[in-house]
Amino acid sequence: MAAFETMIDRNLIAGAALRIARHIRHTPVVQTNFSGNRPVTLKLELLQHAGSFKPRGAFNRLLSADRPAAGVIAASGGNHGAAVAYAARALDVTAEIFVPSATPAAKRARVASYGARVVRVGETYADALTASRTRQAETGALEVHAYDHVDILAGQGTVGREFEQDAPDLTHILVATGGGGLIGGIAAWYAGSVQVISVEPEGCPSLHDALLAGQPVDASVGGLAADSLGARQVGALMFPIAQRFVSQAVLVPDDAILAAQHLLWDHLRLVVEPGGATALAALLSGRFVPPPGARVGVVVCGANTDPAKVVTGPGAPV
Amino acid sequence: MAAFETMIDRNLIAGAALRIARHIRHTPVVQTNFSGNRPVTLKLELLQHAGSFKPRGAFNRLLSADRPAAGVIAASGGNHGAAVAYAARALDVTAEIFVPSATPAAKRARVASYGARVVRVGETYADALTASRTRQAETGALEVHAYDHVDILAGQGTVGREFEQDAPDLTHILVATGGGGLIGGIAAWYAGSVQVISVEPEGCPSLHDALLAGQPVDASVGGLAADSLGARQVGALMFPIAQRFVSQAVLVPDDAILAAQHLLWDHLRLVVEPGGATALAALLSGRFVPPPGARVGVVVCGANTDPAKVVTGPGAPV
Repeated sequence: MAAFETMIDRNLIAGAALRIARHIRHTPVVQTNFSGNRPVTLKLELLQHAGSFKPRGAFNRLLSADRPAAGVIAASGGNHGAAVAYAARALDVTAEIFVPSATPAAKRARVASYGARVVRVGETYADALTASRTRQAETGALEVHAYDHVDILAGQGTVGREFEQDAPDLTHILVATGGGGLIGGIAAWYAGSVQVISVEPEGCPSLHDALLAGQPVDASVGGLAADSLGARQVGALMFPIAQRFVSQAVLVPDDAILAAQHLLWDHLRLVVEPGGATALAALLSGRFVPPPGARVGVVVCGANTDPAKVVTGPGAPV
Repeated sequence: MAAFETMIDRNLIAGAALRIARHIRHTPVVQTNFSGNRPVTLKLELLQHAGSFKPRGAFNRLLSADRPAAGVIAASGGNHGAAVAYAARALDVTAEIFVPSATPAAKRARVASYGARVVRVGETYADALTASRTRQAETGALEVHAYDHVDILAGQGTVGREFEQDAPDLTHILVATGGGGLIGGIAAWYAGSVQVISVEPEGCPSLHDALLAGQPVDASVGGLAADSLGARQVGALMFPIAQRFVSQAVLVPDDAILAAQHLLWDHLRLVVEPGGATALAALLSGRFVPPPGARVGVVVCGANTDPAKVVTGPGAPV
């Protein structure tokens, strides 16, 4: 356990925070309550550059490595690709981003808007990853994994660091899990000092299934949030962190995610993608019930969607 | 001047803040920069209940007065009506809201969603105000003016108080002006300690024209943001505050407002209504050029629009 602790710990995350500080936004928190429930503190990480938390890890990876003339390469459901493209442009290197057919048009266009070459291949993220690795072997570009790399985990862990700075009294934090980079980093930051709860769509239960099996295993990839949370397996690096520091792994149905999207517009005028609303869905649907006295935080982690698709409050298109 | 200073001052605003604290959100700020410009601090008041700053004044008014059995009545382009309806529901009184035909369907539906009776009458806010006063004389309901009341100004001034708390080093703050409740309250809070700049659409120059004329005068009411900024005259109470504490009154064309809306989605994933993007439009269009060394804040004050109408970044509907 000592060896693990030196791999991703507070010092490493604090170092990442320093490294990426001038490239990322310290995103704000806002307190709210929904229909008479107890107050909830939302971390509005959807306001991050490129529309999700992903630039934190991407910048940390790019700034920690030699960046070859061949540039950088990544596979992504969309958000990581947008972040890598954004970071590559900021650091003046070229980027190739491999996305599966499941990636929505809005996300492909977003990646391309940052100047990256977008390659659409395969059905799922795993297919795109395989194709990107074949290409990487040809070009020698720097691979920027979407979650299973120490620099990525440390970068995403800076979300936890900021959340603790801005809302130091939380007892429970809900985080959506795909490949596990975000929750792995956050759980490593808190290291048990708050309860970190994983939330996944029923269609993408990679961490839920891994914790049951005692190791990362193949899980289904489907449903509303598959483009952002549809990793077939959680990362090998995050798994021991989750075993130690993730207190529950909750699943939510797609209709709860949709309801959370609607509520975020109706109550806060936030347009959020399905993956970004998944953590809140656990609270609203009762899949996670806070114990008495809990002070709950929720990471709202992404907004890369078409606003017209978020069915909204009164008067909006349905 | 001494009499004026005792009318709206920091004490009155601090009292309002205390009075309304449990009913409103302390909205967050976020720092960003747009395409290499200097950092700008945005106050995200669009995240307020009912989608604009207006509940601050509405709650302060309702909590400062006896609330008759006939309930409350207000005229509004939409945002104030939504706020009064929201506050009335929270305080368990009935509300009648008079809106002109210019009020978008999304705003009418929003008002109704909070349980208020919506009366659509006349072409402009001024017409709706006249009709609401006729009705008020019949019912004896409590009139909640959209801007020209001391409790409203003091309530909106709490935006300035929070902004100073969260971004104490600003030198210039841009605020959109309609009837002047928001900027009047903010300017009264700062009382010259920062430069407060008024921004209006060219189609609704009520404060710009009043400052030129030396008194509130009738101005045109038109263009993209008329439903939220289309007061024919600024309030009599805010005008002396503006004369003393508003350092510039800038006008922006509608295309700059639209560009600011697009940029807020593209860079921050915020869906903002035209009136909510107007202050930022002054900065982006160069109608306001900060002096060297300025530290600029912008109040993003409303989001009651149909997200599908905000033409967005790549991949979104155009």
